[in-house]
Amino acid sequence: MTSADPHSHKPLDRVARALEQGTLGDVSRMLRKMEPADAAHLLESSPPRSRQVLWQLIDDDLQGEVLNELGDELQLEFLSALEPAQVAQLTEGLDDDDVADILQQLPDEVTFEVLEAMDHQDRARLEQVIFYADDTAGGLMNTDAITIRADLTLDVVLRYLRRHESIPEATDNLIVVTRKDRYIGLLPLRTLLVSDPSHSVRELMLTSQQALPVDMPDDEVARLFERNDWVSAPVVDEDGRLLGRITIDDVVDVIREDADHSLMALAGLDEDEDTFAPVLRTARRRTVWLGVNLVTAFLAAAVISQFQDTIERVVALAVLMPIVASMGGIAGTQSVTVLVRAMALGQINSGNRSWLILREAYVGIINGLLWAVVVATAAALWFDSPAIGAIIAAAMVINLITAGLSGAVLPLLLQRLRIDPALAGGVVLTTVTDVVGFVAFLGLAAAFYG
Amino acid sequence: MTSADPHSHKPLDRVARALEQGTLGDVSRMLRKMEPADAAHLLESSPPRSRQVLWQLIDDDLQGEVLNELGDELQLEFLSALEPAQVAQLTEGLDDDDVADILQQLPDEVTFEVLEAMDHQDRARLEQVIFYADDTAGGLMNTDAITIRADLTLDVVLRYLRRHESIPEATDNLIVVTRKDRYIGLLPLRTLLVSDPSHSVRELMLTSQQALPVDMPDDEVARLFERNDWVSAPVVDEDGRLLGRITIDDVVDVIREDADHSLMALAGLDEDEDTFAPVLRTARRRTVWLGVNLVTAFLAAAVISQFQDTIERVVALAVLMPIVASMGGIAGTQSVTVLVRAMALGQINSGNRSWLILREAYVGIINGLLWAVVVATAAALWFDSPAIGAIIAAAMVINLITAGLSGAVLPLLLQRLRIDPALAGGVVLTTVTDVVGFVAFLGLAAAFYG
Repeated sequence: MTSADPHSHKPLDRVARALEQGTLGDVSRMLRKMEPADAAHLLESSPPRSRQVLWQLIDDDLQGEVLNELGDELQLEFLSALEPAQVAQLTEGLDDDDVADILQQLPDEVTFEVLEAMDHQDRARLEQVIFYADDTAGGLMNTDAITIRADLTLDVVLRYLRRHESIPEATDNLIVVTRKDRYIGLLPLRTLLVSDPSHSVRELMLTSQQALPVDMPDDEVARLFERNDWVSAPVVDEDGRLLGRITIDDVVDVIREDADHSLMALAGLDEDEDTFAPVLRTARRRTVWLGVNLVTAFLAAAVISQFQDTIERVVALAVLMPIVASMGGIAGTQSVTVLVRAMALGQINSGNRSWLILREAYVGIINGLLWAVVVATAAALWFDSPAIGAIIAAAMVINLITAGLSGAVLPLLLQRLRIDPALAGGVVLTTVTDVVGFVAFLGLAAAFYG
Repeated sequence: MTSADPHSHKPLDRVARALEQGTLGDVSRMLRKMEPADAAHLLESSPPRSRQVLWQLIDDDLQGEVLNELGDELQLEFLSALEPAQVAQLTEGLDDDDVADILQQLPDEVTFEVLEAMDHQDRARLEQVIFYADDTAGGLMNTDAITIRADLTLDVVLRYLRRHESIPEATDNLIVVTRKDRYIGLLPLRTLLVSDPSHSVRELMLTSQQALPVDMPDDEVARLFERNDWVSAPVVDEDGRLLGRITIDDVVDVIREDADHSLMALAGLDEDEDTFAPVLRTARRRTVWLGVNLVTAFLAAAVISQFQDTIERVVALAVLMPIVASMGGIAGTQSVTVLVRAMALGQINSGNRSWLILREAYVGIINGLLWAVVVATAAALWFDSPAIGAIIAAAMVINLITAGLSGAVLPLLLQRLRIDPALAGGVVLTTVTDVVGFVAFLGLAAAFYG
């Protein structure tokens, strides 16, 4: 459900109005009262010119946290205007994985300079996480886990904790490791708080939750968090040594991005795309997909041109042919969308693939037959020709079966070729349904009218 | 990123194979070793016939938890085969909000019977949450919060906790309330564990996190969790009295469903749609959208029929006209997708609306001009007619500007009418771009060729 309530973004509206009226003092006051995430949301929801103004109005010591909450594209925009030393200063106090994400946006030589400008301790910690790709468990990981040994009693653990100034956010478990830092289990704070303090960690720790390998893809990490309702999870290297932990807040971002990815990719767009990117950048980005579509549109035109004689004699064909193509396009889009979502959710496997393809074909037959009857009647009456009705009916059935089959098969095929299956939508699919639609309709007509 | 790795769902594959070979003993053994969420995922990824077999093979005392993890559609399918007493038994031990979700699927009289069949305590607790709509804070809420008073010392709180058998999952804070159960603040377990036990709760509690009103829409709840990295949050009634708490695992489901909603709605589908729904149900569900599209396709055909004379004389028009329509369709889909995502993320407000509409128009002009040159050259050479080149170029520019404008305006308009903006995609948008494309191209041609 998307919020249709215009009241829900009142604060945003208010800042926008103050900005428009140029009362910058008000804006600055409002910004100071905002959470970093809200300020970031405001920046993301602002056209380019207001953004620069807003960014300048944000307190220096808050800019790091705001930067951290921004999408990749906007982050890079602000970052590239900063000196390495400024970046080092801004990112002080952020989580390691967040700093690593920010640094990975920058060119390698700049990253190096930023690391140089950091204090020794920050740099040492960062160097542990920065080399992991940001779409793996390693890239989502923090090094702030609190670790304990299995042979301690809870009483000792409680006293050990009390020596800490603070416990990191989203800490639901203490991580139990061996002397050699190998992961062996988790001690939930929930257990620690209700159990007899004389028990040992070993007696009470959970060993059922496996640690995540550092190279696990981020979408799989997200699936595990979702399925098991985890708040945090330990990450280990190939020898089982603890490297850090992943927390749910970072996983939520992955879930959001993955879901956005399917949506945007079906239109040939990138999920990192900034909604308020300037005109030229937006135009440049969308033009490639239009170019691909133009090539395929000419393909469809070439098909039609084979039947010019027939169209010249029966001009009704030119009138009706977009109907066949359009119905195929819609039916195909429905199949592709269902398949792409199913793949993103990890629902497709060797045992159900062929069932799904067949199901889509059957749905194409049923809906093809149903709407063929309607279209045939309408067309026959309109042009006073039962022949045209029969021809368009046959073409409709053929095209809706094709749409169902190709809507299911194309994404599966792309996935096997390790290409993003969502790219099967839009351009590629409508090429198939346009071409098949025109060939079926005009070909049958040419055969009939000779 | 969607996982292109065929290895990531190995266990699923294995069960599917065992099921195919009919070695039900193996399947049953594998099911017993699975987490409920994984078993649910397996059911959702199975064609209808295997589902019934799998469901029977799941241990009775696990069926409740598996049921809880299923999507709405599949949940209802299994539920409707059960007696009220069985439902009452299955749902024993689930979280209140989950049981409420399940019961809300059933007809009112069945829900009543299930409640009757529950033990007194369960029923009393459930009746507190079942009347809240499932897309509000109330519908996401559990009643398992641990509450404390502000005047206690931490030492007393620690002893109070130790009297509990267990603390509910995803408990990161104890909730501080007045004698009259009014919410006043949170005491994080993290704080409790590191602070001097002689301090009072009042000295250490957080009062900055506002409680959520029980009628807050679920997408707004999700946005707050996302922006503030919450693990749980208290829910209050209009008098500020504590009703329960919401935990991140339920919020993650909302985020996933909201993101899925945009994707599916753009193809005229429902986000609850079961990927493996049987043929007839699938066909019935998709046929409406096809019917709507048929009406609009006839509209486009009617436009073309106005220009039959011109097409009869210059048959090249019939060949080229789908190019203009297709380019408009793609450009419009890109605009709609960007707008729908921005709305789902709450990025649109009165201050940036007109900027976005203008930006889309400018992008239409730029990409329209760019591809008009290419299309004009190709068409002029193909049909050896500079006139046709000029006509298609002009039509392209007109249609790409229309596509950008309507792709931005239609979703905004639907939102204002409190209709789901994603429904502006697909059918509605391509009607506009088809009609405008045909009118522009054929109209200009008719004017030129007389």
